[in-house]
Amino acid sequence: MIPQTPPIVDELINMALAEDLGNGDITTRLCVPEDAMANGMVIAKESLIVSGIDVFIEIMKKIDNSIQVTLETEEGKTVKKGEKIAIVKGKASSLLMAERVALNYLQRLCGTATLTKKYIDASGVSASKVRLADTRKTTPGMRYLERRAVISGGGFNHRVDLGGGILIKENHIEAAGSLEKAIEQCKKYGSHPLKIEIEVKNRDELLRALDAGADIVMLDNMTPAEVKECINLAEGRAILEASGGINLDTVHGFAQTGVDVISVGAFTHSAPCCDISFIIELIK
Amino acid sequence: MIPQTPPIVDELINMALAEDLGNGDITTRLCVPEDAMANGMVIAKESLIVSGIDVFIEIMKKIDNSIQVTLETEEGKTVKKGEKIAIVKGKASSLLMAERVALNYLQRLCGTATLTKKYIDASGVSASKVRLADTRKTTPGMRYLERRAVISGGGFNHRVDLGGGILIKENHIEAAGSLEKAIEQCKKYGSHPLKIEIEVKNRDELLRALDAGADIVMLDNMTPAEVKECINLAEGRAILEASGGINLDTVHGFAQTGVDVISVGAFTHSAPCCDISFIIELIK
Amino acid sequence: MIPQTPPIVDELINMALAEDLGNGDITTRLCVPEDAMANGMVIAKESLIVSGIDVFIEIMKKIDNSIQVTLETEEGKTVKKGEKIAIVKGKASSLLMAERVALNYLQRLCGTATLTKKYIDASGVSASKVRLADTRKTTPGMRYLERRAVISGGGFNHRVDLGGGILIKENHIEAAGSLEKAIEQCKKYGSHPLKIEIEVKNRDELLRALDAGADIVMLDNMTPAEVKECINLAEGRAILEASGGINLDTVHGFAQTGVDVISVGAFTHSAPCCDISFIIELIK
Amino acid sequence: MIPQTPPIVDELINMALAEDLGNGDITTRLCVPEDAMANGMVIAKESLIVSGIDVFIEIMKKIDNSIQVTLETEEGKTVKKGEKIAIVKGKASSLLMAERVALNYLQRLCGTATLTKKYIDASGVSASKVRLADTRKTTPGMRYLERRAVISGGGFNHRVDLGGGILIKENHIEAAGSLEKAIEQCKKYGSHPLKIEIEVKNRDELLRALDAGADIVMLDNMTPAEVKECINLAEGRAILEASGGINLDTVHGFAQTGVDVISVGAFTHSAPCCDISFIIELIK
Amino acid sequence: MIPQTPPIVDELINMALAEDLGNGDITTRLCVPEDAMANGMVIAKESLIVSGIDVFIEIMKKIDNSIQVTLETEEGKTVKKGEKIAIVKGKASSLLMAERVALNYLQRLCGTATLTKKYIDASGVSASKVRLADTRKTTPGMRYLERRAVISGGGFNHRVDLGGGILIKENHIEAAGSLEKAIEQCKKYGSHPLKIEIEVKNRDELLRALDAGADIVMLDNMTPAEVKECINLAEGRAILEASGGINLDTVHGFAQTGVDVISVGAFTHSAPCCDISFIIELIK
Amino acid sequence: MIPQTPPIVDELINMALAEDLGNGDITTRLCVPEDAMANGMVIAKESLIVSGIDVFIEIMKKIDNSIQVTLETEEGKTVKKGEKIAIVKGKASSLLMAERVALNYLQRLCGTATLTKKYIDASGVSASKVRLADTRKTTPGMRYLERRAVISGGGFNHRVDLGGGILIKENHIEAAGSLEKAIEQCKKYGSHPLKIEIEVKNRDELLRALDAGADIVMLDNMTPAEVKECINLAEGRAILEASGGINLDTVHGFAQTGVDVISVGAFTHSAPCCDISFIIELIK
Repeated sequence: MIPQTPPIVDELINMALAEDLGNGDITTRLCVPEDAMANGMVIAKESLIVSGIDVFIEIMKKIDNSIQVTLETEEGKTVKKGEKIAIVKGKASSLLMAERVALNYLQRLCGTATLTKKYIDASGVSASKVRLADTRKTTPGMRYLERRAVISGGGFNHRVDLGGGILIKENHIEAAGSLEKAIEQCKKYGSHPLKIEIEVKNRDELLRALDAGADIVMLDNMTPAEVKECINLAEGRAILEASGGINLDTVHGFAQTGVDVISVGAFTHSAPCCDISFIIELIK
Repeated sequence: MIPQTPPIVDELINMALAEDLGNGDITTRLCVPEDAMANGMVIAKESLIVSGIDVFIEIMKKIDNSIQVTLETEEGKTVKKGEKIAIVKGKASSLLMAERVALNYLQRLCGTATLTKKYIDASGVSASKVRLADTRKTTPGMRYLERRAVISGGGFNHRVDLGGGILIKENHIEAAGSLEKAIEQCKKYGSHPLKIEIEVKNRDELLRALDAGADIVMLDNMTPAEVKECINLAEGRAILEASGGINLDTVHGFAQTGVDVISVGAFTHSAPCCDISFIIELIK
Repeated sequence: MIPQTPPIVDELINMALAEDLGNGDITTRLCVPEDAMANGMVIAKESLIVSGIDVFIEIMKKIDNSIQVTLETEEGKTVKKGEKIAIVKGKASSLLMAERVALNYLQRLCGTATLTKKYIDASGVSASKVRLADTRKTTPGMRYLERRAVISGGGFNHRVDLGGGILIKENHIEAAGSLEKAIEQCKKYGSHPLKIEIEVKNRDELLRALDAGADIVMLDNMTPAEVKECINLAEGRAILEASGGINLDTVHGFAQTGVDVISVGAFTHSAPCCDISFIIELIK
Repeated sequence: MIPQTPPIVDELINMALAEDLGNGDITTRLCVPEDAMANGMVIAKESLIVSGIDVFIEIMKKIDNSIQVTLETEEGKTVKKGEKIAIVKGKASSLLMAERVALNYLQRLCGTATLTKKYIDASGVSASKVRLADTRKTTPGMRYLERRAVISGGGFNHRVDLGGGILIKENHIEAAGSLEKAIEQCKKYGSHPLKIEIEVKNRDELLRALDAGADIVMLDNMTPAEVKECINLAEGRAILEASGGINLDTVHGFAQTGVDVISVGAFTHSAPCCDISFIIELIK
Repeated sequence: MIPQTPPIVDELINMALAEDLGNGDITTRLCVPEDAMANGMVIAKESLIVSGIDVFIEIMKKIDNSIQVTLETEEGKTVKKGEKIAIVKGKASSLLMAERVALNYLQRLCGTATLTKKYIDASGVSASKVRLADTRKTTPGMRYLERRAVISGGGFNHRVDLGGGILIKENHIEAAGSLEKAIEQCKKYGSHPLKIEIEVKNRDELLRALDAGADIVMLDNMTPAEVKECINLAEGRAILEASGGINLDTVHGFAQTGVDVISVGAFTHSAPCCDISFIIELIK
Repeated sequence: MIPQTPPIVDELINMALAEDLGNGDITTRLCVPEDAMANGMVIAKESLIVSGIDVFIEIMKKIDNSIQVTLETEEGKTVKKGEKIAIVKGKASSLLMAERVALNYLQRLCGTATLTKKYIDASGVSASKVRLADTRKTTPGMRYLERRAVISGGGFNHRVDLGGGILIKENHIEAAGSLEKAIEQCKKYGSHPLKIEIEVKNRDELLRALDAGADIVMLDNMTPAEVKECINLAEGRAILEASGGINLDTVHGFAQTGVDVISVGAFTHSAPCCDISFIIELIK
């Protein structure tokens, strides 16, 4: 069964279609006969993790509901270089008009899923042992889809938004008066389904956070050695999360510390697009 | 004077705010007193080209219209590592709530402008001699802003959308019957303000395109040597554009051929975010 | 300083204005001279907790930006019968056009805040000891504002949405295979900032949930006596939440058990509007 | 045939879905296998008048177009406690995701229809003899649906909005100069398809309104005895409408006067939600 | 004081701006220095009735909030050929970008107001004696503004929409069973603030409609002579409205009959744009 | 196959439906039984060129997806007076509710197509020899559809928007410093797929524009004789476009000059609606 797009992504799809097709497609109008039919193949030009194929389909259908899509894979699967992701059939003019917007989504989302997978591979640790989590550094309008792509790539999601998680940072501490007061406020007045996470810069703050009852402690911009030391100090009293300075070169070192969570902004703010081509062939 | 955001970007800003703040900011509510005031500094953590500072301001104002922003630079300028981009003043809670969404825009757009500049530098040729142009491979919802970022980085814009330029590709040719027929159709029924561009794969097609009266010929996936040969063959009869396989390593070779335009998808589909920090200090 | 409306509520305000003023105000056009000025007073006709005064202001300003509003109270404060909430000044025609939509918001949100307060008073326990929390049974489009109104009335917020909290219900258990498997899945693949809550129907399920490591256990449709028994059984191993069958008559009994949280759908699904009048006087 | 949602309600449905599902459903994702199928039954937990079943269906379909809904009743019908409203079949994950938003609508709209019916029953008079009418005190974004629910409950609609009816209130009179001038202005420049209604506070104003040619006179905040007296005075020269202070206890007294219309804000501003459950059973 | 745009028109303004400026203004970017200032004059190139000047201002402000507008006239006034409507001052680039969209609105709305006035002049009767009314044949998205323009031109508004007036047409009669039954249904179940209008084709139907108690009778596609005869027959028992076949040549004949209302679709469906120029002068 | 509406027009259709049906259709509700079925015929009451039939269908389907539409013609075809455009079948109530909004679109778009054809006929020259082109003077929200209607009527499209074409006008020249500098700037920094067009007022400016390398020269407000002289002067060095003062009386004279393009604002700003009726017959 063809997967259905989550309702939330509809508005951004409409914006993207308006950007590219708001004035029609003059070349296709001038060159392609109305009744010309075509097949299209979506092919991976590099090994990748699939994400966003439902959005690809939705865009095709928005342009022309009679386009037929046959999936050769599904969300979260690995596709090797040269393999097919989907086969499409419909009016040639419709395929040409939908191609770019549909690929713009698919390439980005596969990019995020694939980069997540690369980090996990680079970490040298199974994802269930050390979690690699995303951040709120997402592309405007794409948070839902990018978070799903991270999951599809084997990563984990951090808090959904500023209302769906408590994360006390330096400024919050300063405004509250002290680390202890900030945690106390959150314990007293926070939402009970949310754990309390706090960002610390050093060993001293870590110990104070643990004593104050933090559920999660974010170790900000520490070296793997410092993270390791914090893990020893914490003695399992809280979930520890390493953050800052994580990249494909350093992730292995952090993962080897055995820290519970490593959060990586790059999944959603700097993933390059995957190379995917859409080959259209006219049916004679 | 503080620059005003183009009306077109408003809808996506609203989506981005809804994504992050649609459920409020629980941590800030719990820790930051309503009357706490703060200063904020937007600082480049790497050398970059500024783009999107108007969107940054707009987001601040949407959260809290009383936030004051003082710009230390402007759209298109270079800012060195450690230099200030803007100074912000307002309620601490407002700055904390606006920070992430505002940075998500600014970091992406500076990323696009800065990558464009890197390509120009790597090309070894002045931008006015060989144009580096963007493509339609833009982030959904961000086309207007990303195209502007390319300009700010010293690049050029390709056609705005499928209605704002004629670009005959392989499938159009096939559907029209022949390269010559495709060009003839476009000449006969196209919009007179638009030049006619056609994609060719080899010398033979180039010569046929020139004979048929193409205004621009896109040399698809050729080596610099092949491009050079095409330039010689064309004898100035059309604008020549190299496309495909252009990256930071290869752009120099293409630029040295003296081709008129080099189009680069990476400007808008794979630019990593710039590293920019927003340092907030409470006013005691 | 006049409070600023959260960006998220703008879309629904526009819908409400379109509903009432999309065809203009014919009576006002026919009867009220363009230059007639008026004062308006927003007066509580019953004792209430204020919520949504920022939305009231925003609606006034959308109709006529020159309307001046002076607040006599603020979000979360108690206002007694006959006391003023705000004073408004502007063109008589503008006040008459804005009145109904502005009140429709204010009366509903004060209704939610005030009902929350009534439950707390009825519980006979301080809110910090036993938390009264809202649910996802909110009015379509009003979740942000209604959740804020609950806070203003002294209550607490439950999870923001289906993505901002884990709550395992009977069907999830059945689908996962067992209570233990459901909790295990959530521990293994869930988001680390979220606690794991599970709904149980009896003592046996409670003990199994505790053994499986649930952070929060929702005691579904139990009597206060059964809740009390569960509290004793749990021995503080998890946060306990009573849910179902809570109303103004029964809340006291549940609160007396000392359960950690009592969730009440009525705050947001059945709060009657507060009686608030807007008295307009023309300035001669 | 399954009823189709009116186009106007689509935008608010999207907002409600975004509120609850904008970040996905983490519990369902973690616990419910993709291929698990389920049946769902929508059951009245109290006797009620059905309204909004089309919106319920629309929300199900937006989440998953393959969900099948079979109606057991229709808009405006009475359903007794324990009876089925609809049967639903589809993927278990889809039903769980759609449940809350779909019920939030259905419970509210049934609440409005059912409360309207209760007022009619309490009035002791057939609805065709004394009309019970709604007001503009509707929930933001829900006016269309709430007005329909009032009709389904046996009530009548008052004017659609400020442009779809002329209703001269105290401030309009004051601004126009006098009651007579206000009516004259409306007669002279109003829209001919609209009757002219005016609000009066006492016998004297009633007589002046009748003499000036009002089509409808709203008797504001009068006792049933005063209303009765006005009816005698008016001698059928205008439609008389009682307004203000009408509740389930007082409506009988007002209805017994034989007044033409009784307008009741509570239908749309204070109707409690109906108790409706959605029982999901997995198909093994 | 500069008039404020009604909230309802905002969405269409945004669409119009997106249509013209969604891809920026390349010519202005290339030719006009950022700091060039200019004055602009909005001048009537033909005698016209002003309508929509508030929308003109709003569009200017949306492009650049620092643009200053000074009005030389106001909504509903007559401006002679060569006279100024408004004076504008601001950045030259902003004026050039806003010009076309702002004029597109102003020219259309003045067109509607002016055509309405021409019909009134052609009718040879004062508007207060025979009302010239608009219809629902409005431009998609422009109903609010076009109805206002009709008022500004001296005309009257018919019902606001399908919910804001009862108008029984031939098909309604047929579906109801008979003319009498249709009127009876509407009397029994309609909204009390609405009059009942019915369309008739001949004398017989007119008499039946009057006997059944219609408030307004629309005389469909009759000649002035037939209309006159109907007026005599009706003896003032209902408002009579002539409809169909009314144009600038025939309106005089219909108006001379003394019919109460003449409805004219052309006001809103076929009004040519007024000729208005926007002369920009750079400030040296 | 029934044509599919371009995605871009959806938003305006929703606005138009909200305008007319946002409050339901009271007359149809009161008079038309739910199960009454009907046939409808869309008939041309004058000879016309069809445009927008896909939008007509889309509106029908939005009201009631079970309505069946059979087309008797297609976009761009000529339909004679009395001929059918489409046959529709469905619930009588649905047809009555959809009728007006659907016709409002169809009549306008046929109006634009038909007026375009009248200009071509009046020009006395085949469209392929002298192009008649539209302008940016389009109805707010309707640009996409109106431009398509112009094509359907045999005309040509000018630039899509301010970003999709370079057109240097008097103010741009003045701001740039000189005609030559303006063209030079555009050549140097413009988008390579766009030709450079410049507006000139006289022979001298024409020659300077040609020397500076303009691709297209707009001859502003010249007489046919002046245009003819310019054609002789230009000697084919640029595309020449006549603009200003073109109407149905004068277009022949301009066309006889052999100028390349004649641009006509009236196509989109002053086309009267076509007379089209929708005859509904109940099925007994």
